[in-house]
Amino acid sequence: MKTSAPPASPPASVSPGPDRAPDDTPADEIRPIVWRRPRLLLLDQRRLPAEETWLELDSAPRVADAIGGLVVRGAPAIGITAAYGAVISALTHGCSGDGRAQVLADLEGLRAARPTAVNLMWAVDRMKTLIEGGAGVDELEREAVTIHQTDIAANHRMGALGAALIENGSGVLTHCNTGALATGGFGTALGVVRQAWREQRLDAVYAGETRPWLQGSRLTMWELLHEGIDARLICDSAAAALLASGRVQWVITGADRVTANGDVINKIGTYGLAVLARHHGVRFMVVAPVSTLDRDTAEGSQVAIENRAPQEVTHLAGQPLAAAGSRAWNPVFDCTPAALVDALVTEAGVVQRPNRARIEAVLADGI
Amino acid sequence: MKTSAPPASPPASVSPGPDRAPDDTPADEIRPIVWRRPRLLLLDQRRLPAEETWLELDSAPRVADAIGGLVVRGAPAIGITAAYGAVISALTHGCSGDGRAQVLADLEGLRAARPTAVNLMWAVDRMKTLIEGGAGVDELEREAVTIHQTDIAANHRMGALGAALIENGSGVLTHCNTGALATGGFGTALGVVRQAWREQRLDAVYAGETRPWLQGSRLTMWELLHEGIDARLICDSAAAALLASGRVQWVITGADRVTANGDVINKIGTYGLAVLARHHGVRFMVVAPVSTLDRDTAEGSQVAIENRAPQEVTHLAGQPLAAAGSRAWNPVFDCTPAALVDALVTEAGVVQRPNRARIEAVLADGI
Repeated sequence: MKTSAPPASPPASVSPGPDRAPDDTPADEIRPIVWRRPRLLLLDQRRLPAEETWLELDSAPRVADAIGGLVVRGAPAIGITAAYGAVISALTHGCSGDGRAQVLADLEGLRAARPTAVNLMWAVDRMKTLIEGGAGVDELEREAVTIHQTDIAANHRMGALGAALIENGSGVLTHCNTGALATGGFGTALGVVRQAWREQRLDAVYAGETRPWLQGSRLTMWELLHEGIDARLICDSAAAALLASGRVQWVITGADRVTANGDVINKIGTYGLAVLARHHGVRFMVVAPVSTLDRDTAEGSQVAIENRAPQEVTHLAGQPLAAAGSRAWNPVFDCTPAALVDALVTEAGVVQRPNRARIEAVLADGI
Repeated sequence: MKTSAPPASPPASVSPGPDRAPDDTPADEIRPIVWRRPRLLLLDQRRLPAEETWLELDSAPRVADAIGGLVVRGAPAIGITAAYGAVISALTHGCSGDGRAQVLADLEGLRAARPTAVNLMWAVDRMKTLIEGGAGVDELEREAVTIHQTDIAANHRMGALGAALIENGSGVLTHCNTGALATGGFGTALGVVRQAWREQRLDAVYAGETRPWLQGSRLTMWELLHEGIDARLICDSAAAALLASGRVQWVITGADRVTANGDVINKIGTYGLAVLARHHGVRFMVVAPVSTLDRDTAEGSQVAIENRAPQEVTHLAGQPLAAAGSRAWNPVFDCTPAALVDALVTEAGVVQRPNRARIEAVLADGI
């Protein structure tokens, strides 16, 4: 098994696995984003699981390219990466005069790399406010590290809160990738799975492959194997038979956005899992940091669902899967009504059977 | 668009699409099995949709190899193919003395090609009974053609019965491949879709890709495109969002086996679609010839579900999709309780809300 540690002395550009130094990362602490001033190291998720390759970035435009090119994905991970991109820009150009203008321009380049990622905007705005307020490089670096460490801490907190809901001897099913690779480290829904495994609560772990991009096959299974969690992959369409079998007591997913009433916008397939869980008396847990809660949007029906290119369904890695000329309907997300969610786990606390009032109550207590 | 007609004068072995003669098959009548005494032509489904290649078979062992090697698939199609294989054997060896012994040996080779396909056993037994009764080649040929034509006729009958259940302006979702390619022609569930489209009842047709083998992407979309039915492919996990959207009024599937009480054993994913359909007030139709009804098995829980190799999930066309070392759970079928089925369509009639008594009543009336 390869490890996820970046090279101790990274080479100039791309470092494939075999050239890397011995692992210096605990097995349960995969870190896809490593700051080594003045450079940022990113584990190239486009090449997983075939290769564990680290990119070493030394300019803000290269960081923006890495975000736009899906070297790093997952809203929390993108925000953290952009914050370090701002530090690199400040190191390059300085924080005063023409240099500051260049840093602010670099920030706009980072912001534009993934125009819909809320955490990206949030991180860029935090760094921009500091720069405009006259902060120096060291202060910017402290802020980026804080953003990173705060995310990891929130994930560990959610892991503990979510794991505590899971009875010993349970089986769980998760969807997409919500692990260390999608965050600063540890993960959201997969962080709960990690923590519950560590606490020996789990008899069985299943991961849905998550078509069309196969984040479950490529990334979640890689993370689970990496730290020795005994897991089985399933086709997404096998979930109903799995839930009927009695092997699974909790379905656990992340969220791209949770609206004020507790509706969950998440990877396509999440909603079907929630319906199937309810039908089988299996509980459904959503794990999402407070930054994912969109309290300005009343309910999920108000969120526009992005439809992506048919080629994501009809082709794989450029090769056709379907008959030539096939059309496809390819929504990226779906909406799970709050009524199907048994527990919404945030770092501020657990919201049982979430609705607007219960979410607000937990936030008021927990923050 | 290529057509599905076999070559008018087939070459000795394999005939790729560009060498074929002009189409002599109506667009709505794809025929994957073509008898041209003394040879059997099979459309090679392993190579669809990339290539439309016809295999020309002139010995029973080659027919058995084609069945075992998945050149042809689908229980009805396999039975028909084996019947023609028996005719080829009789043409080769004659029907008396040592020749008859060789024909009977060939029949056992055909029977063993796919040991679990019920229709294969049934067709082999029909031919065996005739041979043992002293039938000649012409009588065997008439029997094989009858098996083939009877299957197509049953499919057309089911198509008409099923289509009549569908209101004008409806949308439908189907799963796996249940079309001409899985049968003698026209198809079961896809036959209903064909007929309903022909009757201009359908506003929208969706096909689930059907992981892990992608029969929906590869075969169903090929059939639908072939005859100009405007259809869209979806990832299996997008079905819930599709049903929630109101675009679909019927989910229509085939069956590998229907037990005495109306439980449906079918391609993995069918059960989940049935649960989701019921949740959304979408009706669920199963289209299955009488030969699929297993009246000796009381209910679906008594049917052992085959689990296939993890590599079907972790790899595609020999290439790894998942992290190296990934384990997988890969059941081929699932069981849909009769209570989730709104209509069971057979050539003997439609069973509304099937249970044992209603199935027996329709069979008593219809046969």
